[in-house]
Amino acid sequence: MNGSESMVHTLLNNDVSVCFANPGTSEMHFVSALDRLPQMRCVLGLFEGVVTGAADGYFRMAQKPAATLLHLGPGLGNGFANLHNARRARSGIVNIIGQHAHDHIAHDAPLTSDIEGIARPVSHWVRTCASSMTAPDDTAAAVQAASGPPARVASLILPADAAWGPSTAGGVQKLPQRPAPCPADTVIDAIAQLLRSKDHAPGSVALLLGGRAMRGLSPRLAGQIAARTGCKLLAETKNARSERGSGRVNIPQIPYPINGALETLKDIRLLVLVDAIKPVAFFAYPDKPRFLVHPDCRVETLATGDEDVETALAKLNDALGGVPSQVAYVSDGVSPAWSDGMPNSLDMGRALAALLPENAIVVDEAITTGRQLQSSAAAAKPHDWLEITGGSIGYGLPCATGAAVACPDRKVVAIIGDGSAMYTVQSLWTMAREGLDVTVVICANRKYQILSGELDAMGGPPASTNAQRMLSIGAPALDWVHLAQGHGVSATRVDTMAGFAKALENGLRSGGPNLIEVLL
Amino acid sequence: MNGSESMVHTLLNNDVSVCFANPGTSEMHFVSALDRLPQMRCVLGLFEGVVTGAADGYFRMAQKPAATLLHLGPGLGNGFANLHNARRARSGIVNIIGQHAHDHIAHDAPLTSDIEGIARPVSHWVRTCASSMTAPDDTAAAVQAASGPPARVASLILPADAAWGPSTAGGVQKLPQRPAPCPADTVIDAIAQLLRSKDHAPGSVALLLGGRAMRGLSPRLAGQIAARTGCKLLAETKNARSERGSGRVNIPQIPYPINGALETLKDIRLLVLVDAIKPVAFFAYPDKPRFLVHPDCRVETLATGDEDVETALAKLNDALGGVPSQVAYVSDGVSPAWSDGMPNSLDMGRALAALLPENAIVVDEAITTGRQLQSSAAAAKPHDWLEITGGSIGYGLPCATGAAVACPDRKVVAIIGDGSAMYTVQSLWTMAREGLDVTVVICANRKYQILSGELDAMGGPPASTNAQRMLSIGAPALDWVHLAQGHGVSATRVDTMAGFAKALENGLRSGGPNLIEVLL
Repeated sequence: MNGSESMVHTLLNNDVSVCFANPGTSEMHFVSALDRLPQMRCVLGLFEGVVTGAADGYFRMAQKPAATLLHLGPGLGNGFANLHNARRARSGIVNIIGQHAHDHIAHDAPLTSDIEGIARPVSHWVRTCASSMTAPDDTAAAVQAASGPPARVASLILPADAAWGPSTAGGVQKLPQRPAPCPADTVIDAIAQLLRSKDHAPGSVALLLGGRAMRGLSPRLAGQIAARTGCKLLAETKNARSERGSGRVNIPQIPYPINGALETLKDIRLLVLVDAIKPVAFFAYPDKPRFLVHPDCRVETLATGDEDVETALAKLNDALGGVPSQVAYVSDGVSPAWSDGMPNSLDMGRALAALLPENAIVVDEAITTGRQLQSSAAAAKPHDWLEITGGSIGYGLPCATGAAVACPDRKVVAIIGDGSAMYTVQSLWTMAREGLDVTVVICANRKYQILSGELDAMGGPPASTNAQRMLSIGAPALDWVHLAQGHGVSATRVDTMAGFAKALENGLRSGGPNLIEVLL
Repeated sequence: MNGSESMVHTLLNNDVSVCFANPGTSEMHFVSALDRLPQMRCVLGLFEGVVTGAADGYFRMAQKPAATLLHLGPGLGNGFANLHNARRARSGIVNIIGQHAHDHIAHDAPLTSDIEGIARPVSHWVRTCASSMTAPDDTAAAVQAASGPPARVASLILPADAAWGPSTAGGVQKLPQRPAPCPADTVIDAIAQLLRSKDHAPGSVALLLGGRAMRGLSPRLAGQIAARTGCKLLAETKNARSERGSGRVNIPQIPYPINGALETLKDIRLLVLVDAIKPVAFFAYPDKPRFLVHPDCRVETLATGDEDVETALAKLNDALGGVPSQVAYVSDGVSPAWSDGMPNSLDMGRALAALLPENAIVVDEAITTGRQLQSSAAAAKPHDWLEITGGSIGYGLPCATGAAVACPDRKVVAIIGDGSAMYTVQSLWTMAREGLDVTVVICANRKYQILSGELDAMGGPPASTNAQRMLSIGAPALDWVHLAQGHGVSATRVDTMAGFAKALENGLRSGGPNLIEVLL
């Protein structure tokens, strides 16, 4: 058994059973090992951003890490942006990154670069295999680092001699899962006391939920606390995975635009963080504050992302006097009907509310178009809603790919801005290759609308030639039907709400990858 | 005048007049400055690998740096692979990378990452603007670092407050160009003496040229030295830009496959490097040497890439006795005709030899298919031949884009493997947007042929399911006609040599971007 085989055995022994891959020559011994162990599902991406984004989407749904296989520094570089998004989603990923043989690195062959240096800004854990003998232990350590809690991005760099040299048989057995610690009772009691206080003005107290607090029992527990205490519930602006829909607690997000965020938080004087951070502006503006809460707002943490959020909420609920009969923020599943006419965000959300099948997974990267989608879709049947957590656009199509690999029995709907979709458009091919049940909705406004808005907000003269050349993507117009077909995905174009609704129904029924270009 | 405006003025003052861009919110003040200074030509890429690869191609042809505009760490990450290739091509590039305002970085907003850490492995020069007041000097220093000699990748990180804050008027005037130093006469004389020695066995002496030695007067000087001394001429395996074609000195490359490289170099006992490095294997193999020359080969350096290569060769020629009447390795422009039938590398090369117009720029990323193209095309009219220098595939379409921006009066032919083309397929849109005169030839073998060859060479069992899933890209087949049309580029598919030759003629005549999918 060589180092590569011992590594793949170790991955499989530790329940890492999917490898999103874009290998190169230095990884051929690892490819050969994968070839001899067909229990590992290998999924090819034609670009590394697809590979890393798919691993992110896979983790969000499977709650266990996949491996990636990347080709030296440049392969990792191509995967960097979606690893950034994954790090911000706190997704667990085991990156296997090829490297030259130890005795070849100093020779500065063309593909040589500082791989650890590239990996560090986007990885919580980085190690280079010392030899083929250490490879299985290194791999086990990477899986452990990636699995958490808290889940993390682990990057294991594999020199070719560690891949081809002799190793020990059998790899490492399954590592134990460590439970996340619960916050101290004193912390929970102190927050219960704050929430019970009569000193707060109406509407001045809120729980801010994020991360794992957006799924499982946590949203309902938060809804009970809100019903009992009258506090507001807020969600972070972007969340890795929120369980939403009819009959569930649907927590409104802090808006992305800074003015909306400041408005939402302006009256809050006590903010309790539940797997969330003190709200901070996505970007700095010359004349706006950096933090979004009022300077007089008291910010307390019930539980961090490293802690057992669900138990913390349950204990807080108990401390407040046990489970109440009321739950706030529950969607009753009633949605206004969409109106026919030109497609728009509000009506598309209402159509989603009507048409999303139970247990659907929605991957949302519609940016400006998408701002009303999530709240409208709260009336839909129960579903998961996945968002871009790191702000680096191009996460959506890969994330949908990985989510569909993780959940073959669920429908995935990916709603993506045309600008965003272009960064990782090669995902469409992987969807076709794997026959994934993904309906891609491209919101084609043919511009970087978010940037146009930012430029307008600066209050200077209207955009002239150079700004137009950098913010408009309409000349020439991308033809998404051709683009999809080029990747092996069937597609249609619509420019009315009736056309959209019909295409969405057809797409969901098709059972395979399909794309709808919505002209906005 | 704010920091951004002072920076754009400084760039323009120093003859940086093209900005390949993919901006985001943190770069809006810089975008606004570009908008007010239309002398800067802004070229949008829909993915950052297009942006950085285009800057590389631009430098290779314009011999002066372009700027890039990238969105924080993830934007730089997406551009990383082609910056790696540019670094290996020794292309000068001024990267402007947005960053949060200084007082916002510590707040760890979603897009925060260690940008300097990401930039360092791929940049010779990295600086973060301290303030808007230092912005013009920082920019001038970046241009100076990028311009060289030697030309280099310079990364200037621009915090938003340095972009929007007040700065000094006027920027910085044009910096002086420093000449590259010439190697010492003692070095040149010693090499002349070695070359004049009668002790060498026939065919055991070679000059190895690379970098800037592949263009200008250098190839002809080397051809004269070869004619006089009987030494061989060899070129590095991959070169940023080689001036080749009929009537010129066409220097054969060291082959990429390690066995061919070892065979080529096995009898050489004296190798003189001219802007080249001691030949090293692209990748390490368990049973092969790391260096490609025989262990007994003496390796001497005439001139490094930091030195004045052309003068060094001229002085060497003088030291050997003045300019001879003979020149070795000159192509007589005679090529066998191509044969009709299924397209193949040899006949495609012969068709290129017949059809390439004078002064064409060929961007070669055909990898396995391309191995016979360059030597066959030596019979074509004089042209430039650009290759992938860093080994990270995905350089070709962006490089062709940048070369066409640099040379609007020349025809560009980009010959790209289908696997390679997918990494940066978004380049097609920029070609359409800018109306660039590029004929893209996609060599569609529908697999990562180079990797299949490597796997076969390992001598294990035939590729099974997982290897096929990672090395074949034929299921589904990419439809390049649809892909091109989706990006706004007209396209055709051919499966015969006659069809290829006709499509190439039509494409070259069209004067705009077009794509030919060649089924192999």
